[in-house]
Amino acid sequence: MTQTGQGAGKMDKDVKVNDGDYEHDIENEALLDGNEQIRRYWSGLSDKNTSYTNPLLVKRTNTTSQIAIVGANLYPIESLDYEVFDNEILNHDWRSRKKYQIIQYVMLKWGFALLIGLGTGLVGFFNSFAVENIAGFKLLMTTTLMSNNRYLEAFLAYAGSNMCLAAAAAALCAFVAPAAAGSGIPEVKAYLNGVDAHYILAPSTLFVKILGSILGVSAGFVVGKEGPMVHTGACIASLLGQGGSSKYGLTCTWLRYFKNDRDRRDMITCGAAAGVAAAFRAPVGGVLFALEEAASWWRSALLWRTFFTTAVVAIVLRIAIQFCATGKCGLFGEGGLIMYDVSSANITYSASDIFTVLVLGAIAGILGSLYNYLVDKVVQTYSIINEKGPAFKISLVVTIALLTSCCYYFLPWIAHCIPCPSDSTVSCPSINESGEYQNFQCPPGYYNDLASLFLNTNDDAIRNLFSPKIIKEFHVSSLFIYFSTIYFLGIITYGIAIPSGLFIPVILAGSAYGRLMSQLFEPIAKLDRGLFALLGAASFLGGTMRMTVSICVILLELTNDLLLLPLVMLVLLVSKSVADSFNKGVYDQILHIKGLPYLEAHAEPYMKNLVTRDVVSGPLITFSGIEKVGNILHALSSTRHNGFPVIDEPPFVDSPELCGLVLRSHLLVLLKEKVFLGDRDFADQSIFQKISTLDFGKPGSGKGIKLVDLDIQGEEMDMYVDLHPITNGSPYTVVETMSLAKAAILFRQHGLRHMCVVPKSQRRPPVVGILTRHDFMPEHVLGLYPDIKPQKRQ
Amino acid sequence: MTQTGQGAGKMDKDVKVNDGDYEHDIENEALLDGNEQIRRYWSGLSDKNTSYTNPLLVKRTNTTSQIAIVGANLYPIESLDYEVFDNEILNHDWRSRKKYQIIQYVMLKWGFALLIGLGTGLVGFFNSFAVENIAGFKLLMTTTLMSNNRYLEAFLAYAGSNMCLAAAAAALCAFVAPAAAGSGIPEVKAYLNGVDAHYILAPSTLFVKILGSILGVSAGFVVGKEGPMVHTGACIASLLGQGGSSKYGLTCTWLRYFKNDRDRRDMITCGAAAGVAAAFRAPVGGVLFALEEAASWWRSALLWRTFFTTAVVAIVLRIAIQFCATGKCGLFGEGGLIMYDVSSANITYSASDIFTVLVLGAIAGILGSLYNYLVDKVVQTYSIINEKGPAFKISLVVTIALLTSCCYYFLPWIAHCIPCPSDSTVSCPSINESGEYQNFQCPPGYYNDLASLFLNTNDDAIRNLFSPKIIKEFHVSSLFIYFSTIYFLGIITYGIAIPSGLFIPVILAGSAYGRLMSQLFEPIAKLDRGLFALLGAASFLGGTMRMTVSICVILLELTNDLLLLPLVMLVLLVSKSVADSFNKGVYDQILHIKGLPYLEAHAEPYMKNLVTRDVVSGPLITFSGIEKVGNILHALSSTRHNGFPVIDEPPFVDSPELCGLVLRSHLLVLLKEKVFLGDRDFADQSIFQKISTLDFGKPGSGKGIKLVDLDIQGEEMDMYVDLHPITNGSPYTVVETMSLAKAAILFRQHGLRHMCVVPKSQRRPPVVGILTRHDFMPEHVLGLYPDIKPQKRQ
Repeated sequence: MTQTGQGAGKMDKDVKVNDGDYEHDIENEALLDGNEQIRRYWSGLSDKNTSYTNPLLVKRTNTTSQIAIVGANLYPIESLDYEVFDNEILNHDWRSRKKYQIIQYVMLKWGFALLIGLGTGLVGFFNSFAVENIAGFKLLMTTTLMSNNRYLEAFLAYAGSNMCLAAAAAALCAFVAPAAAGSGIPEVKAYLNGVDAHYILAPSTLFVKILGSILGVSAGFVVGKEGPMVHTGACIASLLGQGGSSKYGLTCTWLRYFKNDRDRRDMITCGAAAGVAAAFRAPVGGVLFALEEAASWWRSALLWRTFFTTAVVAIVLRIAIQFCATGKCGLFGEGGLIMYDVSSANITYSASDIFTVLVLGAIAGILGSLYNYLVDKVVQTYSIINEKGPAFKISLVVTIALLTSCCYYFLPWIAHCIPCPSDSTVSCPSINESGEYQNFQCPPGYYNDLASLFLNTNDDAIRNLFSPKIIKEFHVSSLFIYFSTIYFLGIITYGIAIPSGLFIPVILAGSAYGRLMSQLFEPIAKLDRGLFALLGAASFLGGTMRMTVSICVILLELTNDLLLLPLVMLVLLVSKSVADSFNKGVYDQILHIKGLPYLEAHAEPYMKNLVTRDVVSGPLITFSGIEKVGNILHALSSTRHNGFPVIDEPPFVDSPELCGLVLRSHLLVLLKEKVFLGDRDFADQSIFQKISTLDFGKPGSGKGIKLVDLDIQGEEMDMYVDLHPITNGSPYTVVETMSLAKAAILFRQHGLRHMCVVPKSQRRPPVVGILTRHDFMPEHVLGLYPDIKPQKRQ
Repeated sequence: MTQTGQGAGKMDKDVKVNDGDYEHDIENEALLDGNEQIRRYWSGLSDKNTSYTNPLLVKRTNTTSQIAIVGANLYPIESLDYEVFDNEILNHDWRSRKKYQIIQYVMLKWGFALLIGLGTGLVGFFNSFAVENIAGFKLLMTTTLMSNNRYLEAFLAYAGSNMCLAAAAAALCAFVAPAAAGSGIPEVKAYLNGVDAHYILAPSTLFVKILGSILGVSAGFVVGKEGPMVHTGACIASLLGQGGSSKYGLTCTWLRYFKNDRDRRDMITCGAAAGVAAAFRAPVGGVLFALEEAASWWRSALLWRTFFTTAVVAIVLRIAIQFCATGKCGLFGEGGLIMYDVSSANITYSASDIFTVLVLGAIAGILGSLYNYLVDKVVQTYSIINEKGPAFKISLVVTIALLTSCCYYFLPWIAHCIPCPSDSTVSCPSINESGEYQNFQCPPGYYNDLASLFLNTNDDAIRNLFSPKIIKEFHVSSLFIYFSTIYFLGIITYGIAIPSGLFIPVILAGSAYGRLMSQLFEPIAKLDRGLFALLGAASFLGGTMRMTVSICVILLELTNDLLLLPLVMLVLLVSKSVADSFNKGVYDQILHIKGLPYLEAHAEPYMKNLVTRDVVSGPLITFSGIEKVGNILHALSSTRHNGFPVIDEPPFVDSPELCGLVLRSHLLVLLKEKVFLGDRDFADQSIFQKISTLDFGKPGSGKGIKLVDLDIQGEEMDMYVDLHPITNGSPYTVVETMSLAKAAILFRQHGLRHMCVVPKSQRRPPVVGILTRHDFMPEHVLGLYPDIKPQKRQ
């Protein structure tokens, strides 16, 4: 082990270097044998190169951080770099040696895509089936009681069942799997960016996510099942990928091929796409969602596999619907899996319509960014409450459930009764089922428009708003009340401890907004009301989520009318552009609140003025190609670094040269198996006769060898271990004068975990630092250079 | 200038190096002052490091090629690396200094997207309008003559007009713009991969592509307008990007901001997407086509801008159709812009249907790969004929036109007359317009099914095949004759010297195949005939083009029925998988025939076993930070290298260090403006007071300063020039032991042109080689290592 820089104690003197005017504080960890190591290091160099004894330059260029941590949360970071054992497993030579294993691998890849599709499709169907039946029964009970004029009992039944369902969902989240709360899309996004947050893809999370989402949506909250479905899809994929769950005894040895980050991340991308496909019955939308929003790292083979997965989901859902069309699914009828029919056979629009659409988009952009701003504040407030314990979490959920029930039950009393349209094909008012016209307190032959929106499932409310059939059915005042209620309930509901999607609240608010605007624009706009509601939903989605193509395609798949496309595109463009000038998308905001170290696709502008050596910090710890066991053990226990450069040193080579990068997890396997050498001069390449390459595969989350598991005896500490077989000989490197912006893009595009910094000149150690995710975080860079004023990106 | 390695003469001795058992032949160009330079180079090193005098090691590590050339064709290669002047223009600091220029830049970016959309949309409309009128008039003339029993005159009129139109198209291609022949999609794909083929995006090519495509399609060839539309969109984007055409006096100084590869490539991606959107009226399909097939390099901002462009195209087309619906466009009626109505309101399918779809897909996969194989052979044969001169080109085109006319006119005589259906809503037979039922030689009240396919425009033929309305209208024999004719005519037509798209031939053959199969599967399949034709078209497209999501979305947008999605996905999956096991996609094959150095997204498997230093070849030529004019001039004239590493050398720094990379084009600007220094020790950073940064912008293709334009006097040869201001200080680098596969992926993902190879150890020059596109080409690598057997990729 070699630690360069001043090894022992702390140095907090400001130092200046020749080639710049940067100033640095350097804090070194005290290492037991630091000085000795440094002496050994110098001995290989000092006779040839005296300039290295200059301590300023040494400190300047050998300061690095090997831990990828930002903020208070510690997350394992994953790498898509081909590590040494990925090579072993994915290598073609290896493949050609064992044909049957190639076939296993390829079959498994497609088989898993099939399984993810099947699993997510079935969960999606089960979710809709359960929600329709529970919520349907609840609403039926309420409306039946009301039709008998037992209004108080109706309210008690309604609010009581809502609060019970809410409490159950909250209890699951609070006690079983806290990671299941919220949307889940930001966490999946972070995972696909390389941040493996604790328990986010665990089996318990999956269980709570499915059940909690059903309970939460049934409880009448202004939440959707879309985010949870994405998370569910990702969990299913992850479980399959890590070979089941050893904790619950569900494992399979065949699945060892997928014990690497690359395959697992591919599968979770498929899972996220399958989740959207299952939630919206939108297979192409699912693929585009995965591409545009979820995945940080994409390749063409993935497009193909994702597409297959969502096709399976679509087929599963179709079969389920055909089965339920025969009436065997209780209250789950045709509307169970959302498919809104705008059915505007003749869509024509004029210049004035386009003008109204532009105005619609612009206002929605402002409202959308305001929504994000308020959600941000509310989530931050709630997180203080939620941290106090499970009881607080559950109380908060029940309070919001009560508030929602009150709004839903009492607000319709404001509305006036409207006579039923004479030419309606559905029964009006419809008492016995959740449907289009709610009777509420009105006499027979009349209906309450606000109750038709509030006392329905969210899906039915959206269907009502999109409906072009009944033209004059919503009063402006009713729409305004509904819109403001949903807008604010949506904001205060996100962040409570239940699985809660954001799509449906936004679509609800957006379509109410669109329908409201259509009535205000009546004198100049010729477009259909339902179409306006759709455009309103699109504009709100654009204003909050800031996706474009995927929202567009999801909405088209939901409404099955491609002729709307130009208008939907236009309104999305306007609302996203307007909203982008205020703040970031809602998922990016949540990522930021959660403190997940998410790497943006673009480097911050000020990074163009920095070079990589400006941000490396902390002592650089390197190993020799054949290293003492004691040194390795000490490095592993005294630091939390996950990657160590390996340097071949004289006398084995003429001058020190970069051999590669070795990972902590691989070192632990090596130490555990005790593949030691008595003599430093005797290289041992036969390590794979003692350890199977599959032992180096990535373990499931939370598993893997810990440092305390090792049992190294005293005499073994002085033995040697040959690191070459487990060293990744092709680490990604950048020169120390590389612009930080370019290095950041390189780091992100290749999904790296460690990047070696090499010197730009001769007469220097072959590696002068390591860059990790941490070093590219704006918080870190701005911490080093407080004078930089971060500018807003154009 | 520094040339390392043995400077003068040739060395062809096999050399062995310490750390491997590779063997190399090294061929050095004889440079006038090579020895002197090497002496100067050594003088900076030899006192410190004697191992460098070892010639074997020096040769081994300093062999590099700086020219990106593969095969006989020389193409300029473009880079997406932020070059020094991109930084200057895109830099945020710069932006904040001149606010109005930021606004100009952002406005222009969106303005250009709008213009590309408008231009491509209008061209797309004009194309359809012209084709419908010319081909409609031609067919009307023929059918009118036939209805008067003047069969010979009808044939002469038909074949004559076809041959005239074909000759006109061929003459345009042969004399004005040979680059306009063919599909254009491979060339656009290559451009977006970084290969700027000659004249491929020139104004003359655009002109011929538009006119030639109209003439070619009108001439009745089995060709489509889709490939040409993609090429047209790219040309329009390119012309806008380079600021009009200075040759034709259409320029604008505002456009200087786009004089860089990055912005220009973005615009051409938008143009390609707009082309698909215009050809198929499929905006989402266009975006996905650009993402899946066309672009090699993608970022999220591009998704957004491409989407905007295709939305504009969709709106333009919609307005044009609304205008033409009033009957002001001659024969261009409702069917002018293809939109096939499968109109299957109730799509239900059973297990047996899914079985037939699987069989359909599998056979289509085989037929599709056979199609690609035959196209490959035919194009290779034609290229021999076409090389002989314009007269041969035109003769070939006219011959094929005659053959096509004969097939189209005489084959329907085989078919029997079928009585008109009694319940048809259209007139049967329809004599006066191109339509659904062609009378041909049949008596009144009867129609000829084969003539209804042959004697129509391609769009109408597809519409007939997709039509579910008339159930029994095509005999199996007629469908078989039609399918085989189109299949083989499609193959022999591609490669002749006219603009020719491949989509329509494939869709035609595929839908005939699907309809044929539906009749064979009649006993077990319940699916509608038209739907089967659609699935056949999808399967053929999957089998030849090997795209997935984009084909799926394009077909859905063409038919406006999203309920078909699962079946279309399934059939695409099967046909693509089957076909992929035989050969590559048709565009990849054409790229290969044309010798375009296309970088694949995946590295070849054997590259995993090589490292970067194994492939660098040729002498490495480097410059000092302050270099003699004579040396630069000599390097520029004696090599065709486009990039040169700049090394800062003692006494300016302690030891040689990598300063960056300088481009030939920037050196030429510097030499042209004669910003020289009398003294080597006096650095001059005030260069930008003499030269505007905009002078360094990328010139239009074929323009830019040539070496012969320079006028350097004798005494100026001994002066110095400071290269630092124009040096890109952050070139991408790899360590010499980096795996070639990983380096190739890095090179491709970042769209690079040059990549510096740095040493893995100390005591070596700071850069040991340069990798270019050339070095990653399988031809080059396999040339160096003939023992490697390329394996088929999984």
